[in-house]
Amino acid sequence: MSTYPILDSVNSIEDLKALPEEQLDALAEEIRSFMVEHVARTGGHLASSLGAVDIIIAMHRVFDSPTDRIVFDVGHQAYAHKILTGRKDAFETLRQKDGLSGFPKREESEHDAFNTGHASTAISAALGYARAKQIRHAEGTVVALIGDGAMTGGMAMEAMNDAGSANLPIIVILNDNDMSIAPNVGAVHRQLINLRLSDGYVQFKRKLVRMLDTGATGRWLTRHMENFKNRVKSFLLPNRLFEEMGFHYYGPIDGHDIRGMIRAFERARKLSGAVVVHVTTKKGKGYAFAEADPERFHGIGPFDPATGKTKPSSGKSNSEVFGETMCRMAEENPCVTAITAAMPRGTGLQMFAKTFPDRFFDVGICEEHAVTMAAGMAAGGLRPVVAIYATFLQRAYDQILHDVCLQNLPVVFAVDRAGLVGSDGETHQGVYDAAFLSTLPGLDIYCPATQEELSAMLELAVALHRPAAVLYNRGSLMRTPIKKPIEFGKWETLGEIAPVTVVAAGDMVEAAIPVARELGAGLVSARFLSPVDEMLLKEMKEKCRRIITVEDRVNTLGAIVASRVMPVTVTALCVPNTPIRQATTEQQRLFCGISADDIRKAVLEAQKD
Amino acid sequence: MSTYPILDSVNSIEDLKALPEEQLDALAEEIRSFMVEHVARTGGHLASSLGAVDIIIAMHRVFDSPTDRIVFDVGHQAYAHKILTGRKDAFETLRQKDGLSGFPKREESEHDAFNTGHASTAISAALGYARAKQIRHAEGTVVALIGDGAMTGGMAMEAMNDAGSANLPIIVILNDNDMSIAPNVGAVHRQLINLRLSDGYVQFKRKLVRMLDTGATGRWLTRHMENFKNRVKSFLLPNRLFEEMGFHYYGPIDGHDIRGMIRAFERARKLSGAVVVHVTTKKGKGYAFAEADPERFHGIGPFDPATGKTKPSSGKSNSEVFGETMCRMAEENPCVTAITAAMPRGTGLQMFAKTFPDRFFDVGICEEHAVTMAAGMAAGGLRPVVAIYATFLQRAYDQILHDVCLQNLPVVFAVDRAGLVGSDGETHQGVYDAAFLSTLPGLDIYCPATQEELSAMLELAVALHRPAAVLYNRGSLMRTPIKKPIEFGKWETLGEIAPVTVVAAGDMVEAAIPVARELGAGLVSARFLSPVDEMLLKEMKEKCRRIITVEDRVNTLGAIVASRVMPVTVTALCVPNTPIRQATTEQQRLFCGISADDIRKAVLEAQKD
Repeated sequence: MSTYPILDSVNSIEDLKALPEEQLDALAEEIRSFMVEHVARTGGHLASSLGAVDIIIAMHRVFDSPTDRIVFDVGHQAYAHKILTGRKDAFETLRQKDGLSGFPKREESEHDAFNTGHASTAISAALGYARAKQIRHAEGTVVALIGDGAMTGGMAMEAMNDAGSANLPIIVILNDNDMSIAPNVGAVHRQLINLRLSDGYVQFKRKLVRMLDTGATGRWLTRHMENFKNRVKSFLLPNRLFEEMGFHYYGPIDGHDIRGMIRAFERARKLSGAVVVHVTTKKGKGYAFAEADPERFHGIGPFDPATGKTKPSSGKSNSEVFGETMCRMAEENPCVTAITAAMPRGTGLQMFAKTFPDRFFDVGICEEHAVTMAAGMAAGGLRPVVAIYATFLQRAYDQILHDVCLQNLPVVFAVDRAGLVGSDGETHQGVYDAAFLSTLPGLDIYCPATQEELSAMLELAVALHRPAAVLYNRGSLMRTPIKKPIEFGKWETLGEIAPVTVVAAGDMVEAAIPVARELGAGLVSARFLSPVDEMLLKEMKEKCRRIITVEDRVNTLGAIVASRVMPVTVTALCVPNTPIRQATTEQQRLFCGISADDIRKAVLEAQKD
Repeated sequence: MSTYPILDSVNSIEDLKALPEEQLDALAEEIRSFMVEHVARTGGHLASSLGAVDIIIAMHRVFDSPTDRIVFDVGHQAYAHKILTGRKDAFETLRQKDGLSGFPKREESEHDAFNTGHASTAISAALGYARAKQIRHAEGTVVALIGDGAMTGGMAMEAMNDAGSANLPIIVILNDNDMSIAPNVGAVHRQLINLRLSDGYVQFKRKLVRMLDTGATGRWLTRHMENFKNRVKSFLLPNRLFEEMGFHYYGPIDGHDIRGMIRAFERARKLSGAVVVHVTTKKGKGYAFAEADPERFHGIGPFDPATGKTKPSSGKSNSEVFGETMCRMAEENPCVTAITAAMPRGTGLQMFAKTFPDRFFDVGICEEHAVTMAAGMAAGGLRPVVAIYATFLQRAYDQILHDVCLQNLPVVFAVDRAGLVGSDGETHQGVYDAAFLSTLPGLDIYCPATQEELSAMLELAVALHRPAAVLYNRGSLMRTPIKKPIEFGKWETLGEIAPVTVVAAGDMVEAAIPVARELGAGLVSARFLSPVDEMLLKEMKEKCRRIITVEDRVNTLGAIVASRVMPVTVTALCVPNTPIRQATTEQQRLFCGISADDIRKAVLEAQKD
């Protein structure tokens, strides 16, 4: 006997549409159990996906993908969508090498309209689709499903502003779970809370829906509804934000009431213009441990479904080291502040937030504002440290250049998840970090190879009053006491410069140590990507016959070294210029040719020359 | 007898504050004349600066810079601010080498709180200042002056959202001229128009102000004003956008009524929270030619103040060539669309906009949305071409990577103002373009050396259905018939590969031609920065003893060539990793060491080896 009697019979959207409406709630329950069972083994973004199950069922009942285009924002809430669009059996390969992606992927299914991973892109993409449909006279509606956190991102607002005046059918479903990754901040968020709390309006809507479903009064009301609704609403509804932007607004609707949502989506579809359907959901819905601690279950590794417990991680993460260092610095210096873009836990700033609430700023999923706001703080005499993952820092490239570097303001960037990131895949790789940062004028780039260096380098960066970025990978750098003290712009010679010498950066140093020792090659830890150790490079130019650079990012260190040691030949082991798919970090290193074994081969070949 | 009797007596903010109020209008007139007289000689951003004179006078009467911090958005409207803060005499050096910057510069004056150039940064920076003041217990208010165009930029919205709930004194002066650079678009803009047109509210405000100025009723009203105002306003005011975001709102106020603004600013300053003061102005105010065609007078070269006429430019600009090519392609292919971020004229798309209004999309100053919206269009089967200046494309780095390249969507970027840009200076340099684009997976980068190539390359890029960027400089590339047809990924040998060979890209090819001819060096035009001509590079590795690369951007071509030709030594002539200040492009080339003379020296030295 199967545990999923209804889900077993649903292998396509057509199957879903054929299901009797009264079975939908049970289907939702089965999907949730199915998800918990699988994600407990694979790890994944559980809490958001649990919360969005009912919305996704209702969406696929009403809209006809792929004629209608459904664009997910961020995309890690799309598990139910994958399960319902023929990818149920592949679900056990979630986030693994050659397996199902944790995010929508056009190459996986025609029902995945747009690849995502970063926040706030869905409305722009949906509007692009809508314009393409209009110009090409193609049929169908476009739908964007976006969370309340992503809605406060700047580009979502830019898109709303454009879509609100585009006079095209575009439906924005706002999945409002009162918690994107961390609890939300800001005025828009407060307005959403007000909306949710306006019981009068909710009851009015409920009554209205009942009336619309019955007889002549209903039909009359449907005809006159827009005007009627608008007049009534101005008394009942405390928020007019979306309507000010040119959208029709339906809501708030219970995001776990599938039938209610089906009616709302059907009505939204009939309108010709831009509509926001505001649904409220509970993150982690249906799995008690996730409901109780949705932030922990946001992105989680394998866990025991019966207890919700994950295996205790061995040793301290780099994020924890960062968090501890921040607390220590803030204790000593009243001007140190911490800024995060909706990632207080992920970046390791929880303790800082508790201990120094007045100097902790979570600006929401707003990397651009975070960086320029920090620049303003620095101009005003503070010592801001901005903690943003490498992949999300891409969003603020212009602000780092224009507002921090060109003004030479002392903002320090703590760049977590630098380099290869593993199972999140292409959209989350931090491999471009040094490439986009290393050409910026006056920005120091620190590459700690150990957790002790990470801590010491953060302190040096804050002490030096210069724009700086400290890059460190997901997980844990090795722990080794610092022998040669950190000196600004100086690299560390770990194994005497030899005719064949390896130059490694960050966590690649650990991989290179045994190889260099075994083969008698020289070994240098490139502690800084800017400024670089010109003196040591000069020495290497004289003493080396061949140099091998190793980095887990696109060629940056390799190019830097090559430009200094000509005519010495440099072999650059680095991440190739191609999207790096999900896999374990080890598998990704093998794919990129930067594993310990690849270093060994490169050294052996160089020594043969 | 001086032409500027009042202005002559104002050499500091203290002088301005001491002036009798009834002289302020005359002062504004003198400042306008002074500006027109000077900008007619130097060129500059005239229309915005003319429009903001009265606001700036009122601001400096009320606020005490630098204790109060005034942050300009974009900054090209700040000429009156410069004139009033002791930089009047330097005004004749505006935008010239070693002269006064056309934008606020902290290094120029303590009254320039934050450097700007790009749009939508002011509110973030101001909020950073406000938080610094709070944490450091420092005195003073912070003020952000931002235009209606910049207000629709995503990061301004992110900042408004944060500031609206920060509970700090921050005054946002919205300078609403109904036209940022090009006429505005979008829903927010429509709301501003509604606001301006609500005469009832304006009259009510006027009455209220009069009442507040008189006796007991006034005092009573002042005490109860907030509640009173809010109740009255909900009937009179069609726009509540800012209040939904947590701001007090004053306006709309006539932005040329200095006394009215002084009262409004004084009231805003007394409030403890976040306030928007909405003022309406006329761009180009006071100079008939600029009022009649503000877009032409937005950024203008030297002109005849009596006629408003500029010298006819010699030959076609690259932007014009781009515009013509776009029209031709759109004629042939109904799927070609053009997207601009508020720069229809600057990018050369005026004719396209007129001829193909249904396929032309000006999304406002929203580069991020522009790129992802275009990606959606491409996913929907269109062939979008996104025209954004190199410096502003930095804003969309993440979107180019995440939404275009990782999905391999055929979006073509027409990157105007690439490389050195001349008198706009640091903030507008396009010198990072290839550095941030060249590591992106699957993005083709075209570098035309002639206008004929520009046109042919755009056509090839659109035909190939791949993500692509075509980089071209401000001004005019040389005109030369194409001898060797453009072949994807192939470079052009202009002078036989020799032991010393020069590889130049884009408009640097023109500078290198006579040098190579004179000295018998080889010469290659690097038509593509990605993919590169591996075959030719192999040939060069065999035949060359020394290679000199020339580019008017930070080292990109140099690193690419060096990585392919080891152990051949490569001398990279390029823009150094330091902010490049305003000057003519020729002066900037000299500063960077990439002038024709520098190429000659490098070749001679290499030939000596």
